Amino acid sequence: MPGQKPRWSSRKIIMTIEEFISKSVGEWISMRSGHSLAFKEFENIHSTIHISSLKIDSLEVLGFANENGIAPNTIVSPFKISWKTESDWDISSKNETESSSSLLIPIPFSSTEGEIIRSQGYTEKIIAISKYIFLPDGTLSLSTEYDQAKTEERIWFVSNNVRCRTSVVKTSKSLAILQTSYASEIRKITII
Amino acid sequence: MPGQKPRWSSRKIIMTIEEFISKSVGEWISMRSGHSLAFKEFENIHSTIHISSLKIDSLEVLGFANENGIAPNTIVSPFKISWKTESDWDISSKNETESSSSLLIPIPFSSTEGEIIRSQGYTEKIIAISKYIFLPDGTLSLSTEYDQAKTEERIWFVSNNVRCRTSVVKTSKSLAILQTSYASEIRKITII
Repeated sequence: MPGQKPRWSSRKIIMTIEEFISKSVGEWISMRSGHSLAFKEFENIHSTIHISSLKIDSLEVLGFANENGIAPNTIVSPFKISWKTESDWDISSKNETESSSSLLIPIPFSSTEGEIIRSQGYTEKIIAISKYIFLPDGTLSLSTEYDQAKTEERIWFVSNNVRCRTSVVKTSKSLAILQTSYASEIRKITII
Repeated sequence: MPGQKPRWSSRKIIMTIEEFISKSVGEWISMRSGHSLAFKEFENIHSTIHISSLKIDSLEVLGFANENGIAPNTIVSPFKISWKTESDWDISSKNETESSSSLLIPIPFSSTEGEIIRSQGYTEKIIAISKYIFLPDGTLSLSTEYDQAKTEERIWFVSNNVRCRTSVVKTSKSLAILQTSYASEIRKITII
């Protein structure tokens, strides 16, 4: 009925980086669509993503922290992402399979903001530092500056078993938008 | 550098429904990806979208308001969306072209929340009432309940000439997620 006050206006979603990572742990089947804006081309990518939490006092985390001058007591909920992708370009129809993994180290400044240090960036193969902020609806908003590009990502839970993710890639100098992408990630549930 | 306070934390984006619609007026080229979660199928859709503002005292707006019991003095920035789509299902390779238009009547409750009444829904061909709220980063978040389905949409500006839009369609009863979609919308700029 028009004019009725929406019920959802009072809905409060509280999310911290610990909760977000805890909800993200597991195996996900990802459908990702890349949009090349200049060429108006679609890329459809199927992939499998495995997210696992790590202990702060593990050799992997302490070693990475030590190499990069990160004080271990500033780290919260370190985790690892492994993925295997299969890409179908709709024009050339060639198939490419790629797999890789990345160590991620969150360093919160407050309950809603901080940084995530990655051992390997998605856009360039260097260590990447992302600034993050949580929106009031629980969306994790990430901004990452690389040498040549700047990416803006958003990740949010549609349900406990479905995450959505968008990204926008801009050039660092002109901030021209090169491409955007969107992924639906569905938790892989094993039925025994 | 790790540990540095992010500059963007102080960034305030103020957006009202009037500003959002004013920024949206024009012709857009849309690339839309549909993800069918159950079948893991992609749908790639090219379309053209035309958004035009209407006057509150136009016959079209007043007629619609009168038929649906909407007081004209509650309406802000009514507008019209016309679109023409061309869909390519990656499995069947059949092409479908569809065009339609919809009248949209925003009724704000506050500077950040309200309702948008549509003369034609996207999911079902009935009048649809969407509840909207603006997130602090300027994203317009819309929730619409149809007879059989519930959709959640988000629309935001990446730049003045690029909008992004996501949608999630759930069944009304079980809230099972049927499909998600994502669109990159690029303003059509005519060079004379």
